[in-house]
Amino acid sequence: MEIAGSRSMRRHANKKVGMPPGSMIYVGDGSPSPTTVSLMDYTETEVMEKTGVTLEECMPLRDSPSVTWLNFSGLADVETIKRLGEVFGLHPLVLEDILHIGQRPKLEQYDRYVYLVVKMLYRGDNGEDNGKEVTYEQLSIVLGKNYVLTFQEREGDVFTNIRERIRNNKGRLRRSGPDYLVYSILDMVVDNYFPALERVGDRVEDIEERMSDDPEPEVLSDIYRLKREVLFLRKSIWPAREVVGAMMRQDIELVAPSTTTYLRDVYDHSIQVMDVVETYTDMLSELTDVYMSMVSNRMNEIMKTLTIIATIFIPLTFIVGLYGMNFTYMPELTSRYAYPAVLLGMTTIAMVMLLYFRRKGWL
Amino acid sequence: MEIAGSRSMRRHANKKVGMPPGSMIYVGDGSPSPTTVSLMDYTETEVMEKTGVTLEECMPLRDSPSVTWLNFSGLADVETIKRLGEVFGLHPLVLEDILHIGQRPKLEQYDRYVYLVVKMLYRGDNGEDNGKEVTYEQLSIVLGKNYVLTFQEREGDVFTNIRERIRNNKGRLRRSGPDYLVYSILDMVVDNYFPALERVGDRVEDIEERMSDDPEPEVLSDIYRLKREVLFLRKSIWPAREVVGAMMRQDIELVAPSTTTYLRDVYDHSIQVMDVVETYTDMLSELTDVYMSMVSNRMNEIMKTLTIIATIFIPLTFIVGLYGMNFTYMPELTSRYAYPAVLLGMTTIAMVMLLYFRRKGWL
Amino acid sequence: MEIAGSRSMRRHANKKVGMPPGSMIYVGDGSPSPTTVSLMDYTETEVMEKTGVTLEECMPLRDSPSVTWLNFSGLADVETIKRLGEVFGLHPLVLEDILHIGQRPKLEQYDRYVYLVVKMLYRGDNGEDNGKEVTYEQLSIVLGKNYVLTFQEREGDVFTNIRERIRNNKGRLRRSGPDYLVYSILDMVVDNYFPALERVGDRVEDIEERMSDDPEPEVLSDIYRLKREVLFLRKSIWPAREVVGAMMRQDIELVAPSTTTYLRDVYDHSIQVMDVVETYTDMLSELTDVYMSMVSNRMNEIMKTLTIIATIFIPLTFIVGLYGMNFTYMPELTSRYAYPAVLLGMTTIAMVMLLYFRRKGWL
Amino acid sequence: MEIAGSRSMRRHANKKVGMPPGSMIYVGDGSPSPTTVSLMDYTETEVMEKTGVTLEECMPLRDSPSVTWLNFSGLADVETIKRLGEVFGLHPLVLEDILHIGQRPKLEQYDRYVYLVVKMLYRGDNGEDNGKEVTYEQLSIVLGKNYVLTFQEREGDVFTNIRERIRNNKGRLRRSGPDYLVYSILDMVVDNYFPALERVGDRVEDIEERMSDDPEPEVLSDIYRLKREVLFLRKSIWPAREVVGAMMRQDIELVAPSTTTYLRDVYDHSIQVMDVVETYTDMLSELTDVYMSMVSNRMNEIMKTLTIIATIFIPLTFIVGLYGMNFTYMPELTSRYAYPAVLLGMTTIAMVMLLYFRRKGWL
Amino acid sequence: MEIAGSRSMRRHANKKVGMPPGSMIYVGDGSPSPTTVSLMDYTETEVMEKTGVTLEECMPLRDSPSVTWLNFSGLADVETIKRLGEVFGLHPLVLEDILHIGQRPKLEQYDRYVYLVVKMLYRGDNGEDNGKEVTYEQLSIVLGKNYVLTFQEREGDVFTNIRERIRNNKGRLRRSGPDYLVYSILDMVVDNYFPALERVGDRVEDIEERMSDDPEPEVLSDIYRLKREVLFLRKSIWPAREVVGAMMRQDIELVAPSTTTYLRDVYDHSIQVMDVVETYTDMLSELTDVYMSMVSNRMNEIMKTLTIIATIFIPLTFIVGLYGMNFTYMPELTSRYAYPAVLLGMTTIAMVMLLYFRRKGWL
Repeated sequence: MEIAGSRSMRRHANKKVGMPPGSMIYVGDGSPSPTTVSLMDYTETEVMEKTGVTLEECMPLRDSPSVTWLNFSGLADVETIKRLGEVFGLHPLVLEDILHIGQRPKLEQYDRYVYLVVKMLYRGDNGEDNGKEVTYEQLSIVLGKNYVLTFQEREGDVFTNIRERIRNNKGRLRRSGPDYLVYSILDMVVDNYFPALERVGDRVEDIEERMSDDPEPEVLSDIYRLKREVLFLRKSIWPAREVVGAMMRQDIELVAPSTTTYLRDVYDHSIQVMDVVETYTDMLSELTDVYMSMVSNRMNEIMKTLTIIATIFIPLTFIVGLYGMNFTYMPELTSRYAYPAVLLGMTTIAMVMLLYFRRKGWL
Repeated sequence: MEIAGSRSMRRHANKKVGMPPGSMIYVGDGSPSPTTVSLMDYTETEVMEKTGVTLEECMPLRDSPSVTWLNFSGLADVETIKRLGEVFGLHPLVLEDILHIGQRPKLEQYDRYVYLVVKMLYRGDNGEDNGKEVTYEQLSIVLGKNYVLTFQEREGDVFTNIRERIRNNKGRLRRSGPDYLVYSILDMVVDNYFPALERVGDRVEDIEERMSDDPEPEVLSDIYRLKREVLFLRKSIWPAREVVGAMMRQDIELVAPSTTTYLRDVYDHSIQVMDVVETYTDMLSELTDVYMSMVSNRMNEIMKTLTIIATIFIPLTFIVGLYGMNFTYMPELTSRYAYPAVLLGMTTIAMVMLLYFRRKGWL
Repeated sequence: MEIAGSRSMRRHANKKVGMPPGSMIYVGDGSPSPTTVSLMDYTETEVMEKTGVTLEECMPLRDSPSVTWLNFSGLADVETIKRLGEVFGLHPLVLEDILHIGQRPKLEQYDRYVYLVVKMLYRGDNGEDNGKEVTYEQLSIVLGKNYVLTFQEREGDVFTNIRERIRNNKGRLRRSGPDYLVYSILDMVVDNYFPALERVGDRVEDIEERMSDDPEPEVLSDIYRLKREVLFLRKSIWPAREVVGAMMRQDIELVAPSTTTYLRDVYDHSIQVMDVVETYTDMLSELTDVYMSMVSNRMNEIMKTLTIIATIFIPLTFIVGLYGMNFTYMPELTSRYAYPAVLLGMTTIAMVMLLYFRRKGWL
Repeated sequence: MEIAGSRSMRRHANKKVGMPPGSMIYVGDGSPSPTTVSLMDYTETEVMEKTGVTLEECMPLRDSPSVTWLNFSGLADVETIKRLGEVFGLHPLVLEDILHIGQRPKLEQYDRYVYLVVKMLYRGDNGEDNGKEVTYEQLSIVLGKNYVLTFQEREGDVFTNIRERIRNNKGRLRRSGPDYLVYSILDMVVDNYFPALERVGDRVEDIEERMSDDPEPEVLSDIYRLKREVLFLRKSIWPAREVVGAMMRQDIELVAPSTTTYLRDVYDHSIQVMDVVETYTDMLSELTDVYMSMVSNRMNEIMKTLTIIATIFIPLTFIVGLYGMNFTYMPELTSRYAYPAVLLGMTTIAMVMLLYFRRKGWL
Repeated sequence: MEIAGSRSMRRHANKKVGMPPGSMIYVGDGSPSPTTVSLMDYTETEVMEKTGVTLEECMPLRDSPSVTWLNFSGLADVETIKRLGEVFGLHPLVLEDILHIGQRPKLEQYDRYVYLVVKMLYRGDNGEDNGKEVTYEQLSIVLGKNYVLTFQEREGDVFTNIRERIRNNKGRLRRSGPDYLVYSILDMVVDNYFPALERVGDRVEDIEERMSDDPEPEVLSDIYRLKREVLFLRKSIWPAREVVGAMMRQDIELVAPSTTTYLRDVYDHSIQVMDVVETYTDMLSELTDVYMSMVSNRMNEIMKTLTIIATIFIPLTFIVGLYGMNFTYMPELTSRYAYPAVLLGMTTIAMVMLLYFRRKGWL
């Protein structure tokens, strides 16, 4: 029985012990994916898009009034991230956290920017890690005055839709500032929790269907495995809710009041996600109880039936044993009607016992 | 075993993923009911009532000092709702939430209006969804300066009584503003929780009555089904309480202080509803325990009785086997009184065992 | 199995659905008792006492500086209560709540008076409802500038002692205002929780005593019944604590600071009551565990003893069966010493098994 | 099964019902001990000590700048306490609470003094009530401007050490005010919780040691008894923590800031006490689980071994029964090698079954 | 069954009872280790390092602008610590707490310094106490204006890395004040929680692996032992989180705002540690459930198989007994085909029963 995540959880933590604070080393499962940097720079009227940019190209955009979105996929190129930190004036601890997969979702306010960490969830069958129902990816967001930096663990994300909206000038995105872009990203991340949850929901329903009259023992270990998954889900989603709440309620200068209304919407969605997660938790622990009572009901039924059969025959076997004794003087033995009488007597005893059991409701 | 609601819950959420915020698409079970718009416009002295109005007719009423109540039954006509939003200046997210069935009850304060979502509960046998004890309908309320907009999922509601009171100028309704109308609606919604709860209560009592000495295994799955229902009830009612509380406590300009006293009354009722729901929760988990201990008591009784019978006959069967042996030299066999002596001995043994069992309290 | 209170709880709530707020209709179990109005009017120097007064007689007292205590026993006379409401300027919702038995204990502050609801508890054997350990009676209190109105469900109360003290000018009552009278009433109500609790405590001890080595199954259902009672007790007492706390802490003009010290005392008592209730809850759930483990200990003991007997005889029965076979060529059968040898062998086997079981600690 | 404390708890409460507030009557178990009054009066330079003082002697000390400590052991002399109350201007409710054993630990602030109630704990074998592990004694403390009054239920206390320090001018006591004396008393009370807890800890370890492979059923009832004790302990200690916290945090004029640092230390100790109590609670409920699983493991083992024996012999007994049949035409019976063949066959069957069971891991 | 820590916990507490506050006596397990004092004194440009310093040497450094770090390993030399207290003006209660092993982690603010207590955790196999997975060591820190005092129970610590960084002027340490040094120490302490946790995680995985189809009973007691360890872990780590939080949030003059950002990082780590601990707690209680259901599944399987065998043979044994009876007139006995007929009949019965059991799903 391998309990998902326990091993990797500990591996992460260990790597860092003894390092001075702000040490920039990738800490995660396996080696990091190679870094691809993609840039989007837009105002209400213009859009510029580029993949594989160098930091030198980005610098002039940092202070331009246009909204600059730099997205890093893959965290292998520590050097670039380090220099980015210098260019944008990021705190060493922020850079460390970006590289340190395994952060708890959080929001940290710095003088000139806000740093957010959330988890993106994918259905397990899309990702590389096929054994699990859900895979996690850490997303770091830095929201500055007129730029947004995002850092993902791997290539491939859930933001295609947002890019499309920027390109086609759909919705409010192009007309709004970087705070609205961060909102859109958070909205997309939280919305994508639902399909990941659906995967878990499918498994719960699978188990419900297998919960027939005679459930196999594997059902139980499947329930336990799912319980663990849901436990990890909750650990990722619950603080995400707090992150959105903090961004919405704390007086962050970089977040416009009009965006707050939208953040409230994401907040509502994240509460709904938690509701679903909690419902799954409740369902799973109920299914454990159902499984347990079904197994015990079944066992009881077997024991009852078999014990009743045994009980009826035990006195009868005694009687036939009685007349199997070899005593010389047993007057009954020679009687002509003894045998039929004994047969009749035994039938009567069996009948009386059956009747008694039925009246007692044991049959 | 189909667990009510899990499937539909996930379906809702999915539909929206990838849409830009404010997308106006109906998200709910099945297709939406066709929209009927009904209008009530009243002052202390006059009432105007009309069904199937167009938005054009409503516009002049929006700013008139009379209280205007526009009720939408059925959410199919997205276009009308969209234009209504423009006319009354509703935020796109509000319009999205109105169409998105599956909102958590909430109160959102906007600059010029307050948006509320609550759930109406119906006894399952009145609605279309006969399998469940309780059916839910989302009710969206927009409270403006001198208008109230209500949006229901389906035709048919619990407001007949309110309309009657407006028509006949009974109670304070005609003399009060739109905040009192919203109060009356909330009051009616919460009051209607009780008959829905009664339905659940009937089922709980059914189960209590079936909890005889020998409960059938179906009782257990019925308890689990009801537990689930009550879980969903709690999820709808608990935030409703908060909605009323928020409307009462937050300094909302649109709510007159005199109405606050009435809202406190609704608040009290919603606490009473929660009390009932909690009592049902407690009852149901107690009934599970009662069921479990009854089944095990019964099983114990069977096992005990049968084991005792078996135990008495086992030594006796040994004895009769003993004298069934075919040894040539078994002096007892030829004795004249051996047979009656053995019979007597066996009776004695049986008696002694019965006495011992009785003294031990096992009979 | 009738679970106390579930039916009546729902009946209450139902009656009111669809009524406009402030509807004055008695909602309770059965028909209301006939109303008796009794008056006490006192200053430090004088006392006036009268039963069966009319409202007309009371009116002049309303504004007199003397403390006026109007007590209503029985709520049948809705008309009088309605007119009383007009005379004393009570809010329609207050009047509705007075008639609506089944309120949660609460304190509501109005402009010119404070409205309190608490529950009086009686030992079940004193009241009419003999099946239950505890009966409940709703007490509504209206505290005004120089009057106190009390409304009880039935004739007969716990205030004899207070009246006596007023008549004989004992204690601070006559020297203090109506707030001290309300304190005295609350003190009496809370003090009377203890005898009601004692009744429950007696039942708990009954169960403890019946929890012998071999508890009857009825014990379990008695525990469940008591658990339910305690659950209802907690629901009545817990908010009562809050009522006293609110009266003590909120800056209520009608309550003098010197009375606050006394209210703190009642508050302490109500915490003590809750402590006792919680102890009973803990005791009862522990007794369930004790019952369960006693039943299973007992069952184990039976099974163990009986199985051991069975096990010893099973091999022996095999042996005697062996020599009961009718093979022509079984040399042992004709041996002179075979029979005693077999007897000896069987005794040895039985002894060895007994020793083994004893060494294993199974005997 | 007598559950400690339930009976006495209710007796206390009952005695007071119907009394006017401020009634000075001793409420406790048995009759109160006779009152002994002892006096200590000290400044930095002088100490005066006297036992059996009269109130008249104390009066001049009340207003002297020296710290006056009046200790009452035994609460029988209600009259003296009453007069003391008049002399020191104590509120009637304070006097009532002093005499009313069974107070919850609390701190009450009055205009010119602070009233504290805490519980002193003694190991059960020192006190008179030998059946219990821990005995409780109520300690009331009144802290005034330059006096401290303490009231104990019985002769003999834990303050010998404090008196010694005052006499010998050790530590800060003589140099500090009455608040430091109260601190010293509270410190001593809390420190004495540890030996009382140790007694409980000894019992927990006793139970751990008796938790052998085959625990006796008494272990379970001992665990339940201890659980109850710990429950009562928690009820006494938890509010004591709040009392110290209130004295430390609330801006009490009578408590000097320098004393607050010391109170924080007592506060820490009381948290440590709670930690120990909670650890015991956890240990005890774990021990229940351990007991339960040990009993069931043992039962399983018995059932398994015995059932296996039975199962092996059942088919064999069938076979020997088969050849015990008396049919005229049974060719095997006359065969020369039938008997050894059957013996061999039965041995084979037994062997095969044993192998099967072993391979299944049932042996 | 020795429950780790209960005995030593109580021993600590006891030693102190009756001492005046501020008594300087070592309270811990066994005798204290001999004290070694090591000194580090650094500015941005210079470092001075010395082991075995005397207090006299330290005094001039106390007020110098350089950062002075005095580390005490071993608490045997009470006299030196006492004099240190005088030199640095430490409160007697602080000195008492330093010597009193068994403090709850806490932060106490004094006028001119801050006193912190945390626990250092080591993997059990490194330390002296090999029976446990984790060993604890109390670390007291005093943060003054330009000095840091640290007190450890034993020689050998986790600070080698920090000393190295000071010597080599790596990171911000040399450029920052004593608050950054305290941060570095706390960071190191919290980071070292992870390897200690890993040890526990290894044990959890061990248990998971031993949780085969047929778990040994030792698994259960191992789970219980680990549960206890994790309980103690939580008791040490949870308040550590509060200590860091207090240092970060409270307006402590001695902590520079720039250091607060770093402390937030330690705070995040300590939350992560708690997450891991909570995950272990959840895992362990789940493993208990898994163990329980595996044992009962297994038992059920044994009982089922064996009972089925028994049930099939019981009626057959009855039949062979029947024809073993010695009645003179049993016509079947002499029939030529009776024996084969009976054999056939019995085979049929066995087949029918097997089929029935299979159809019922019992095989």
